[in-house]
Amino acid sequence: MNDEEMKMIQDKASVLVEALPYIREFNRKVIVVKYGGSAMSDKNLEESVIKDVTLLKLVGFKPVIVHGGGKEISRWIEKLGMKPCFVNGLRVTDKDTMEIVEMVLNKVNKDLVTLVEEQGIKGCGISGKDGGVFTVRKKLSEGKDIGFVGEITEVDTTLIENLLDDDFLPIISPIGMDQDYRTYNINADDAACAVAKAMKAEKLAFLSDIKGIYKDINDPDSFISRMSVREANELMDSGFVGGGMLPKLNSCIDAVMGGVNNVTILDGRMIHCLLLEIFTDHGIGSAIYK
Amino acid sequence: MNDEEMKMIQDKASVLVEALPYIREFNRKVIVVKYGGSAMSDKNLEESVIKDVTLLKLVGFKPVIVHGGGKEISRWIEKLGMKPCFVNGLRVTDKDTMEIVEMVLNKVNKDLVTLVEEQGIKGCGISGKDGGVFTVRKKLSEGKDIGFVGEITEVDTTLIENLLDDDFLPIISPIGMDQDYRTYNINADDAACAVAKAMKAEKLAFLSDIKGIYKDINDPDSFISRMSVREANELMDSGFVGGGMLPKLNSCIDAVMGGVNNVTILDGRMIHCLLLEIFTDHGIGSAIYK
Amino acid sequence: MNDEEMKMIQDKASVLVEALPYIREFNRKVIVVKYGGSAMSDKNLEESVIKDVTLLKLVGFKPVIVHGGGKEISRWIEKLGMKPCFVNGLRVTDKDTMEIVEMVLNKVNKDLVTLVEEQGIKGCGISGKDGGVFTVRKKLSEGKDIGFVGEITEVDTTLIENLLDDDFLPIISPIGMDQDYRTYNINADDAACAVAKAMKAEKLAFLSDIKGIYKDINDPDSFISRMSVREANELMDSGFVGGGMLPKLNSCIDAVMGGVNNVTILDGRMIHCLLLEIFTDHGIGSAIYK
Amino acid sequence: MNDEEMKMIQDKASVLVEALPYIREFNRKVIVVKYGGSAMSDKNLEESVIKDVTLLKLVGFKPVIVHGGGKEISRWIEKLGMKPCFVNGLRVTDKDTMEIVEMVLNKVNKDLVTLVEEQGIKGCGISGKDGGVFTVRKKLSEGKDIGFVGEITEVDTTLIENLLDDDFLPIISPIGMDQDYRTYNINADDAACAVAKAMKAEKLAFLSDIKGIYKDINDPDSFISRMSVREANELMDSGFVGGGMLPKLNSCIDAVMGGVNNVTILDGRMIHCLLLEIFTDHGIGSAIYK
Amino acid sequence: MNDEEMKMIQDKASVLVEALPYIREFNRKVIVVKYGGSAMSDKNLEESVIKDVTLLKLVGFKPVIVHGGGKEISRWIEKLGMKPCFVNGLRVTDKDTMEIVEMVLNKVNKDLVTLVEEQGIKGCGISGKDGGVFTVRKKLSEGKDIGFVGEITEVDTTLIENLLDDDFLPIISPIGMDQDYRTYNINADDAACAVAKAMKAEKLAFLSDIKGIYKDINDPDSFISRMSVREANELMDSGFVGGGMLPKLNSCIDAVMGGVNNVTILDGRMIHCLLLEIFTDHGIGSAIYK
Amino acid sequence: MNDEEMKMIQDKASVLVEALPYIREFNRKVIVVKYGGSAMSDKNLEESVIKDVTLLKLVGFKPVIVHGGGKEISRWIEKLGMKPCFVNGLRVTDKDTMEIVEMVLNKVNKDLVTLVEEQGIKGCGISGKDGGVFTVRKKLSEGKDIGFVGEITEVDTTLIENLLDDDFLPIISPIGMDQDYRTYNINADDAACAVAKAMKAEKLAFLSDIKGIYKDINDPDSFISRMSVREANELMDSGFVGGGMLPKLNSCIDAVMGGVNNVTILDGRMIHCLLLEIFTDHGIGSAIYK
Repeated sequence: MNDEEMKMIQDKASVLVEALPYIREFNRKVIVVKYGGSAMSDKNLEESVIKDVTLLKLVGFKPVIVHGGGKEISRWIEKLGMKPCFVNGLRVTDKDTMEIVEMVLNKVNKDLVTLVEEQGIKGCGISGKDGGVFTVRKKLSEGKDIGFVGEITEVDTTLIENLLDDDFLPIISPIGMDQDYRTYNINADDAACAVAKAMKAEKLAFLSDIKGIYKDINDPDSFISRMSVREANELMDSGFVGGGMLPKLNSCIDAVMGGVNNVTILDGRMIHCLLLEIFTDHGIGSAIYK
Repeated sequence: MNDEEMKMIQDKASVLVEALPYIREFNRKVIVVKYGGSAMSDKNLEESVIKDVTLLKLVGFKPVIVHGGGKEISRWIEKLGMKPCFVNGLRVTDKDTMEIVEMVLNKVNKDLVTLVEEQGIKGCGISGKDGGVFTVRKKLSEGKDIGFVGEITEVDTTLIENLLDDDFLPIISPIGMDQDYRTYNINADDAACAVAKAMKAEKLAFLSDIKGIYKDINDPDSFISRMSVREANELMDSGFVGGGMLPKLNSCIDAVMGGVNNVTILDGRMIHCLLLEIFTDHGIGSAIYK
Repeated sequence: MNDEEMKMIQDKASVLVEALPYIREFNRKVIVVKYGGSAMSDKNLEESVIKDVTLLKLVGFKPVIVHGGGKEISRWIEKLGMKPCFVNGLRVTDKDTMEIVEMVLNKVNKDLVTLVEEQGIKGCGISGKDGGVFTVRKKLSEGKDIGFVGEITEVDTTLIENLLDDDFLPIISPIGMDQDYRTYNINADDAACAVAKAMKAEKLAFLSDIKGIYKDINDPDSFISRMSVREANELMDSGFVGGGMLPKLNSCIDAVMGGVNNVTILDGRMIHCLLLEIFTDHGIGSAIYK
Repeated sequence: MNDEEMKMIQDKASVLVEALPYIREFNRKVIVVKYGGSAMSDKNLEESVIKDVTLLKLVGFKPVIVHGGGKEISRWIEKLGMKPCFVNGLRVTDKDTMEIVEMVLNKVNKDLVTLVEEQGIKGCGISGKDGGVFTVRKKLSEGKDIGFVGEITEVDTTLIENLLDDDFLPIISPIGMDQDYRTYNINADDAACAVAKAMKAEKLAFLSDIKGIYKDINDPDSFISRMSVREANELMDSGFVGGGMLPKLNSCIDAVMGGVNNVTILDGRMIHCLLLEIFTDHGIGSAIYK
Repeated sequence: MNDEEMKMIQDKASVLVEALPYIREFNRKVIVVKYGGSAMSDKNLEESVIKDVTLLKLVGFKPVIVHGGGKEISRWIEKLGMKPCFVNGLRVTDKDTMEIVEMVLNKVNKDLVTLVEEQGIKGCGISGKDGGVFTVRKKLSEGKDIGFVGEITEVDTTLIENLLDDDFLPIISPIGMDQDYRTYNINADDAACAVAKAMKAEKLAFLSDIKGIYKDINDPDSFISRMSVREANELMDSGFVGGGMLPKLNSCIDAVMGGVNNVTILDGRMIHCLLLEIFTDHGIGSAIYK
Repeated sequence: MNDEEMKMIQDKASVLVEALPYIREFNRKVIVVKYGGSAMSDKNLEESVIKDVTLLKLVGFKPVIVHGGGKEISRWIEKLGMKPCFVNGLRVTDKDTMEIVEMVLNKVNKDLVTLVEEQGIKGCGISGKDGGVFTVRKKLSEGKDIGFVGEITEVDTTLIENLLDDDFLPIISPIGMDQDYRTYNINADDAACAVAKAMKAEKLAFLSDIKGIYKDINDPDSFISRMSVREANELMDSGFVGGGMLPKLNSCIDAVMGGVNNVTILDGRMIHCLLLEIFTDHGIGSAIYK
């Protein structure tokens, strides 16, 4: 073995040793991963996310995936000759649309199961209807009824906990029922946030299509690695946070206040962003803490 | 209370007392119900089937539902401007068709979850991909490749058993993966049969669109209540069994030979056929035994 | 199958479906049955009671029988040439009498074990001395010492709970010991009431020799199906409650106040009164609630 | 402390140290004690037996008592104006007699429970009918039907094992049911022997009214401390064994051959005979080994 | 058996019966034995102590040994050409000395393991470093640094409890680590006291080189069998307690105030002092109670 | 983040992803590490070994350390003015020497405990005397008695398994007792081998002072990465294996034949050799397989 090889090998060892304290920190703890956006449309990114999550499971964490599926839903709606229709960023969801939404989300759900099983990990895809995981009520958009769009009022974690105890990786689609057993679509960020709070998760990671949060969206040097809830509130008040980022930031704050120790917005477009965030000293996303 | 009321009340008591030895017989035993056909298209029938299955769970049995969805699949295929295509009764399933089949079966699956939850029972809908329940290989139709139609080579019962132990009612859609993690459609009767054998079920009940089996399909008096495997084989040899019935009868024989004590073809068009079959002395279906 | 048969069959199904919500309500809950009076002297009634109780066990309830044996005790006392002697309805129980009381109650106890085992259910007959279930102190009758008549001061439920956990049906005779380990006779209604309270039973059912409670004992139309504790107290104050009924009504109130949800006086002379009370919508007894 | 006191104290220590290896030997092992004869009629002896058995329980053994009650039965039969009647040493047991036998044995049973509870140990008195412990068939006496006298064909140890696991001391009266659920009287020695075999007991101790076994009943110096099964068979063949001893010796041999390591006939008239037998080096009874 | 033999045998029985209530009292309770002094240097005494402790384990107690080793340490220090050095009764412990102290204490520890295993009991020797049992901080002697002499600030009982649950006898040497993982020597009396408090022991027994505590050290008749904490404090205030006894008495008071029911100073020079103290009515040591 | 940083980060991710299948392979499996030689004398190496082993534990393996201590023993023997004496590479071990050997090995043992605890992992240091782990007999050296040098005849894994189940890292010194409870020194390689076989370990890793095995010790290019047992035997027959390597190679073969899947000789002088061997694709040691 020559010197260069030796150096390369020792570098490998260093990476593993660097990972050690992080493995200890999260051992047997629940990590909720909100999976959506670009990380879902690109085959390579998709594979890297699934590899990361299954690695987390292998080393003793308890990951839970909550996924969206917006683009795929729109694609099928068009395929069926209908038109996607949004009000204030929320999909207007009549009965026919809801039928398609549920079908597509469950399709996405089972596609993820396939990828997880491919990694040799036992996955189980459920919707929030299974085991009564999500109870919802109708959500209005600025007072207007936009159909079967729900907000979560209660999370029954029994099924999720049973699956974790039985060593499965739960993959959850954001669908729920109201008290009259009608089916509703739920915003995936909200669903992930609700699961993280109900499971008292150690960490909630949003895989998004941005690098993270900036003090000033136009200044690449103003990237924020860590920020307290108080600072986050101030930032939102400042008016510098872009429109799309506002609800996500609110979800982060909601989760932190609800007992999740560590909420991070990650750049889902970076290969192995989850591994790097959790196992290395690089702050590659924006974390909110209490 | 007058005499008539008293008589009516005592009749009720008798029904309950008649049910007693049957409850004892099946206590904590697995019962697989293949659910499909008319019992699935009619709202009243559907509700009666789900009520029956949830009652079985409440009194201590371990029911498992395996469902089909043929008609609904055809409906959506047409909706999307495609044409259902069958060879020897098997759906030719190219990649696009398979995508729709999976979406529709999972939709049917979650509809059943809704109905089960409505009865106050915790249901969990899975496909045979979850937890690697069904491993399949491509099934040829008389030597011809008809696409993603699979036959089951292995059943991993871990997830089903875990769900039963955790007190959930498993509802399974007949989809599986081959060793390269490609998704396949499976005949629902075969899937039910495979689950019953792998779970060493006490009973497998097919809800079908016929009253049961007849010695001579044209003679209503030739109805067969009970028949040994030997008699079933003779009957098939005789040529009197109608075409549609042949594969179902073969599934029955396969299940009995694979260790299921009691395999019954029930008339799914009769309200509460499952309760009546299991809890009363009336032989309302055709049972195959060893 | 003709129409009449079909109707009869569907009636059966309806009975079973009607029973469903009740099974759910009592699942894994403790039901204490005070067994005595006519239901004990008549072979048919006896068999119907035991069938009912074992059915409750089979469908997942946790029944416990507490029995009396007054008539049988008197019969044996006379057989041995002694004279039964009562003061204010309480048996004067000297040492010799107590010896006979214990022998006879244990005989009745084992007779019930026989009947339970005959139904294929594992029964275990104990007295309140076993496992120190009942600790008592001497009970005076209007200030007078009437011998070994005890009132319960403490219930140790360990043995009863262990038997239930080990899947046995406990059958308890109303005998206990005081702190000096002397044996006492206990009123069976009181014993049943004490067990129900200590076990936090869901239901306590008294099988009695009357139809239930009437507002006016002379008016058959004044039968009371349900009554709150407050109403029961008012009724007792009204003076319309017959002498024999007073202590039983007091036991009912005591049990309800002690945490038993549902206390019912049933007509033990009606075949399958327990099944009908629990599994049907007919109020065939008088229930006291909080 | 003077020298004499010191010596006395050190003698105490020696006794405890001598007991040590025996405690190790029997730790968590089942010891069946057949209790009957004089040890049952004398208050002091009775108390010493119960103290011994409860000590065994306290130090970690699993004692089980099987008792008789012959003398007490005869006393009550006479009290009721009937005449005890024996054929070949077996009580002729018609239906009326059987009723009395069961009552008296259960009375004896509960008297023992009282004594055990008095020692601060949880006892549970059962008959062989409870939990279906003893299944019997009619036993003929030299071909003649002598009524409800049974011999054990099967022992269901579930209830006994559950009671031991739940830390109770089981006290068993020798009564059983045949396959038609009729009640029978069983010879207590046979019952003890059957329990010991079925429980795979480490030791079976018969408390009898003799000192043990003698080679020659007329020669006090011919006492046998230990004897192999082969020697026991030779002894019986020799004709020197007295009539009353023959069935007991046969029970011993039966138990040893059935897997009980250590079967001993003890002199129940000696205070603390059980403790001395088990915890000291003195062979105070006659032991049969394989 | 002659009368004298019989008397001797019955005396044996009495000793065992006397022991009974004590066995009941301590069943499954933790007893910490501080082992040191003469009882450690004399082969006979050593064997008697180990026999006593293993007997306690055999009969169901949970003994834990904490040992010292002062004399042996001094012997090895001299062997290595160094000089033992004490300040106020505490060993000045530089780095080299500490190395020897640890080696010798662990040697003593494993010698005890040998003796325990010889009795057929599974022993496990640990130091307070294993499993982080003892966390310490530097202890000053009247303000002066005397090296690696530690006082316990925290006891992690996990390892001790696991060993007890797994049926091992824990033998603990008084060594611990501070928060920077440096090794310290701990006074063995203090270590025993800390373990007893942390384990909520029922009893703490100090085996010492004196008979116990005297009101007046010069008056052999002033021996104190039992004394309350209040009396102990008064005694110390009185100035009659000898210098060597003061810290031990303080340890006793500390343990009692920390929740140990029963703290006793025993004469380790008396054969079987532990057995006699625990199993007989003789007060052979001085007990402190609350 | 610039391109170089990004590349460095992605390299990190790759290392973690490469490690994934290895983590899966060893999950919950026992890995025995023989620790000795240079890796023990150098502070940096020591720390790297302990970090590696604790990382293995953190990610779900079950590591067990067996250590030697030859150099340290010789140092102390000299310190005490005695002379180390070897015959055929085995230390002549008289009683005095054995005393020192045991002290030094236990000192080394507790030093390792300190290092393990420092990493935040619960360690427990035992010798083979604790829990009777090693039973040995005297080992002769070419027929000559060389004192207390033992060879293992039996391994009782109870204590090791209990410690693993209770989540401790067992650290074992190579000392055992013979059937007369005399203490013996054991060759550490043999001890590691015996533990690996008895625990049915997945892997046994020897940390040695050489790079591994060479076909020809004088030819650096003849390094052997993997070799079957048959090849190893041939190599030994060839005479090319150096003297010091022979017993180690024999231990390897013994372990493989005794059921250990994977036995590797590693260069203990390379930092993080354990991590690199287990988590990377580089064959940095010489592995023997069946």
